[in-house]
Amino acid sequence: MKDVKKNEKKIECPIEKSISLIGSKWTLMIIRTLYLNKKPMHFNEILKDLNPISSKTLSSKLKELAKSEIIVRNVIPDTPVKIQYSLTEKGKDLNGMMNAMASWSLKWNI
Amino acid sequence: MKDVKKNEKKIECPIEKSISLIGSKWTLMIIRTLYLNKKPMHFNEILKDLNPISSKTLSSKLKELAKSEIIVRNVIPDTPVKIQYSLTEKGKDLNGMMNAMASWSLKWNI
Repeated sequence: MKDVKKNEKKIECPIEKSISLIGSKWTLMIIRTLYLNKKPMHFNEILKDLNPISSKTLSSKLKELAKSEIIVRNVIPDTPVKIQYSLTEKGKDLNGMMNAMASWSLKWNI
Repeated sequence: MKDVKKNEKKIECPIEKSISLIGSKWTLMIIRTLYLNKKPMHFNEILKDLNPISSKTLSSKLKELAKSEIIVRNVIPDTPVKIQYSLTEKGKDLNGMMNAMASWSLKWNI
């Protein structure tokens, strides 16, 4: 008896596992923005930086990334309450990938 | 006078440049498949490996990757003519990124 649902392929390859989690344009762009900014950011700051992303897409992608524990949503008890997003240790550990992408782009004059 | 068209943002960040070129699921998956396979592959081999990608999407993504000089389309003069795809030096040089993705996945038990 199969332990996976029909049409659900069990992923064994570690590269494919990473791609399934972070392999989309806006997901990578959010990680990049938080990585380069070095400090927590408000929703509107990320939104502005990723122009022309829509609020709806950004909101959905931030939720996905928080669920994957790549980013964390911090609630600052202020009036009004402030929400900030930052990379977790797991998210910060994507610096190897970010650096590899930067090096490749510079080397090949992308 | 602006030297870029309306709605066309000039990209300066090397990470963003890489994301704009290869930051999509199927593009990354094609690079991964050719990277792991180590030797040229036929269209149908890639199609099978990337199940459930559609022929239309694969065809379109292969054209994009060839235009970006990340893969090369080799025509083998046989009867019938055979077409094979492989990574160029520029494409092979994405091994740093592929390895970083694999290491991250293994480290964080993705």
